[in-house]
Amino acid sequence: MKKLSESKKDKQPIALELAKKQREISVAEFFEKNRHLLGFDNKRKALLTTIKEAVDNSLDACEEARILPEINVTIIDMTPRQEKPVEVSQGQTKLVESEDKEEREEKETSKSERYRIIIEDNGPGIVKNQIPNIFARLLYGSKFHRLKMSRGQQGIGISAAALYGQLTTGKPIRIISKISPKHPAQYMELKINTSTNRPEIVAEKELEWKKEHGTKVELELEGTYQKGGQSVDRYLIHTAIVNPHVTIIYTPPDGKQMIFARATNELPKEPKEIMPHPHGVELGRLIKMLESTESRTLQSFLTNEFSRVGPDTAKEICANAALMPDFSPRKMTRELAEKLEQGIKKTKIINPSADCLSPIGAELLEKGLRKEINAEFYCATTRPPSVYRGNPFIIEAGIAYGGDQPLDEQARLLRFANRVPLLYQQGSCAISKACVTTAWRNYGLQQSKGALPIGPFTIIVSISSVWVPFTSESKEAIAHYPEILKEVKLALQEVGRKLQIHVHKKHQVKNMLERANLFERYVPEVADSLARLTGESKEIILKKLNEMIKKSDIMKEMEKIETLKGEVEEETKLERKSNEEED
Amino acid sequence: MKKLSESKKDKQPIALELAKKQREISVAEFFEKNRHLLGFDNKRKALLTTIKEAVDNSLDACEEARILPEINVTIIDMTPRQEKPVEVSQGQTKLVESEDKEEREEKETSKSERYRIIIEDNGPGIVKNQIPNIFARLLYGSKFHRLKMSRGQQGIGISAAALYGQLTTGKPIRIISKISPKHPAQYMELKINTSTNRPEIVAEKELEWKKEHGTKVELELEGTYQKGGQSVDRYLIHTAIVNPHVTIIYTPPDGKQMIFARATNELPKEPKEIMPHPHGVELGRLIKMLESTESRTLQSFLTNEFSRVGPDTAKEICANAALMPDFSPRKMTRELAEKLEQGIKKTKIINPSADCLSPIGAELLEKGLRKEINAEFYCATTRPPSVYRGNPFIIEAGIAYGGDQPLDEQARLLRFANRVPLLYQQGSCAISKACVTTAWRNYGLQQSKGALPIGPFTIIVSISSVWVPFTSESKEAIAHYPEILKEVKLALQEVGRKLQIHVHKKHQVKNMLERANLFERYVPEVADSLARLTGESKEIILKKLNEMIKKSDIMKEMEKIETLKGEVEEETKLERKSNEEED
Repeated sequence: MKKLSESKKDKQPIALELAKKQREISVAEFFEKNRHLLGFDNKRKALLTTIKEAVDNSLDACEEARILPEINVTIIDMTPRQEKPVEVSQGQTKLVESEDKEEREEKETSKSERYRIIIEDNGPGIVKNQIPNIFARLLYGSKFHRLKMSRGQQGIGISAAALYGQLTTGKPIRIISKISPKHPAQYMELKINTSTNRPEIVAEKELEWKKEHGTKVELELEGTYQKGGQSVDRYLIHTAIVNPHVTIIYTPPDGKQMIFARATNELPKEPKEIMPHPHGVELGRLIKMLESTESRTLQSFLTNEFSRVGPDTAKEICANAALMPDFSPRKMTRELAEKLEQGIKKTKIINPSADCLSPIGAELLEKGLRKEINAEFYCATTRPPSVYRGNPFIIEAGIAYGGDQPLDEQARLLRFANRVPLLYQQGSCAISKACVTTAWRNYGLQQSKGALPIGPFTIIVSISSVWVPFTSESKEAIAHYPEILKEVKLALQEVGRKLQIHVHKKHQVKNMLERANLFERYVPEVADSLARLTGESKEIILKKLNEMIKKSDIMKEMEKIETLKGEVEEETKLERKSNEEED
Repeated sequence: MKKLSESKKDKQPIALELAKKQREISVAEFFEKNRHLLGFDNKRKALLTTIKEAVDNSLDACEEARILPEINVTIIDMTPRQEKPVEVSQGQTKLVESEDKEEREEKETSKSERYRIIIEDNGPGIVKNQIPNIFARLLYGSKFHRLKMSRGQQGIGISAAALYGQLTTGKPIRIISKISPKHPAQYMELKINTSTNRPEIVAEKELEWKKEHGTKVELELEGTYQKGGQSVDRYLIHTAIVNPHVTIIYTPPDGKQMIFARATNELPKEPKEIMPHPHGVELGRLIKMLESTESRTLQSFLTNEFSRVGPDTAKEICANAALMPDFSPRKMTRELAEKLEQGIKKTKIINPSADCLSPIGAELLEKGLRKEINAEFYCATTRPPSVYRGNPFIIEAGIAYGGDQPLDEQARLLRFANRVPLLYQQGSCAISKACVTTAWRNYGLQQSKGALPIGPFTIIVSISSVWVPFTSESKEAIAHYPEILKEVKLALQEVGRKLQIHVHKKHQVKNMLERANLFERYVPEVADSLARLTGESKEIILKKLNEMIKKSDIMKEMEKIETLKGEVEEETKLERKSNEEED
């Protein structure tokens, strides 16, 4: 401050002027201005994103509390009927997705409709003092700091929805939550103070709620409700498909309730929380860990705070780093930490265990496809776990071929991340990238460069990871990590091969039968003429010829095919087993 | 807390367990984990992003202080030579861009190189107590909260670079800053505490610095230096092109210094800060403004805190909202605020003025093209200002056709936002979208669906806005706002038409001359035979024939073309005038 007063005497340096303008930017202000980063870039997407965030939270909470989820989703049209929808003004324009289709939709739907969203679950509920932070504060949550697979991971989603509702309707988000039969339900109305990114409690009270435990979220927002491609309906249908343990009761604005009843009473295997893998930790992070560790020796530090590091590995790392295993972590300088990092890089360490993941499973994926698509051939596969930047992940893929699906259109692609359907930004997703760069021609399919293969089929791909690297906070597309691209390709090649056998054999059988039919058609005449030539009785010749056909290799081929199909299924089962064992 | 103690008696509700895991996520932790959102997803991009953020800040600071910028950029290779580069391990893998080219590059370059980056400017400097927050705290700055065109806008960039450097090398960012000859220079070493997103001062001292004022930023990071497509070199060249008032002295790792000397001593017109436009303000924001305003009546509130609202417009808005102009803003409920919003929507209000913008200018854009590309035809245009979500913006476009450029490749596209070259994510940028959806065939160019036109030319497009809506924090691509797409298309159509005239005429001339040459070639023979037939002397006939050719319309055509070219240039000049007037 001395300098400041000094400079008063002479002409003030401009820096002092500029300094006055410097200030903190709250993360709420930031995302309010950049809402398209959060998936609130157009009104249709805003509605979907809001429901998605709420449902994902409910499912995470139920599964963590080992409760079979039952979720009510209700959308009520609140658009004031008396006034006809106001035409879009500059203030109202929203982003449009790259796809022209969506652009069109967006233009059709940019009148200001308003909806009330109600999501109610039977989850464990939320303790009173946490409700404000969880629903009205960005970057607050329980999932960010741990390595464990879950749908939510950022601590942004539901508060972002609250922020969007508040921004477009000025109304607070309303919460009812009950944590046990012994506790009264807690009611709260919350707003986000965007300048501070802190919750403001507009109203709160205790009330009676018939439920034993659960949470009810209610908010109002400007949005657009539509069926079809990227709709709430589609999101819920696909969610039900890959979460067969969930019951969803869905009431869209038209009141035509849909119930997706659970298909199994078995919760998915609970993923375990794991320690970071040494190969995923960069120098800066390593230094931070060394500073805050309680371990008294490097060896215990390495074994206690990393996964896959036993005493021997720890010793090996120290050796490779030319450091003593009993050296004190607190005494580590930046230079020593760098040596340690080099040591870690030099040391072979087995991949992190995958029990932090709970993939969908090939069988379930295939079931899902059968539910969704009426095809003639289905197959699916689960890849063994792999790793990017130290984060374990598992890729699964499936195909549904033939049936009602259009013959000469590009294949349909369904994407999932940690059991959540991804409906937007297919173009910039690593899954699509891997899909279009897979050589489908090898499997007897048409494909033009840089495009999805053409044919009557649907591709389904799912990634499960402790940290899914999305390309934006709106969690719509997977970033292009080489390891992920590679794994998706391998998975697609597996299902591709199975598909090929099917397509190829199908083709052969077709030809065989055609040949056979052709022959059969001429049998009578042939018999006739032969009879005349040989003087043998026509009946006998007929009989002989027909026998010939039966004996012909058609039937053999048919059998071959059956066995082949069998083998394929066998193969699939085995793969699944081995994968399950690896999990 | 009452409930908590209660529940101790009986079986604890799970909610209490889960509650313990809930905690704040610092924005630094968030971006540390999501660094690909900030442009640090691969090592090559990390190097570019770091320099980009530092240079953009220097330019903004100089221009705001009305100082002609002179910037030194130095990259020093710090890769330890003794040890051969360590092979990439899972921990080191970085993202790859969608384009296979980049993917390849990335694979080639994922060995761990290390560089020291030094950026020194002659700007106004930074007062001591602001240095830590500006360089070691995310979401802190002077540009976010105002409506004024600048390169930086988020308050993230340079601190993100510091964070990345710290993460990959464990080293602090080093700053020297001096605000006037009367003040000593201030030296600081800073780290970001990622758990709190607050700066930690590692070292600080005052020192002598020959400079009168300026700032020097120095940091070390893991990166990859390459020339070519998306290199630092390219970024600096393009920056110099659209910022002719800047001198950049660039020393790449190979030590071969390049100097981009300023071409003009005139600073760009200083953009003015403006108030928000009523049509850009949503209900939530309006309520917030009403709560915090000092104005005592709605009318003064509207006239004081919005742009383009005079007393009459204010009255009209109130009338449309069925509210009294002298009503107190403090008394406004949510419902009344909603009426006011409806009133605003119903009222016609002229677009925000564009003096908050300082576009490059068509002339300069064309000059830039001439510097960069050796072509035969150049043209450029500046569109009148337009508005998205209440934010004014101006689109400019230019074309360089022919010359050395490849005949049968897709056109090259150069993108700029607020005078900053955009080098990544071309595919997902609104500018590209508008480019590929423009019907270039109308202008006599080849184009396949959904692709850039094919031909020997380069397209340059620039957007200037108080808030450029980027698709991610890394500021590489523009979001698909319909108004922006439309304006880019209109700009491209303008230059397209000019190009067409050129291409078309060029074609005509070519034919004419061919015909003429053909004819000329036969003149002697024709003369010969005519001489024989008519008995007229060959010389006279020759003379006559040659006169005929001269008289022929070839020459007229030639003149036509000249005049046409003239007209085009005239047209261009006029447009520029009118646009400049509108600015």
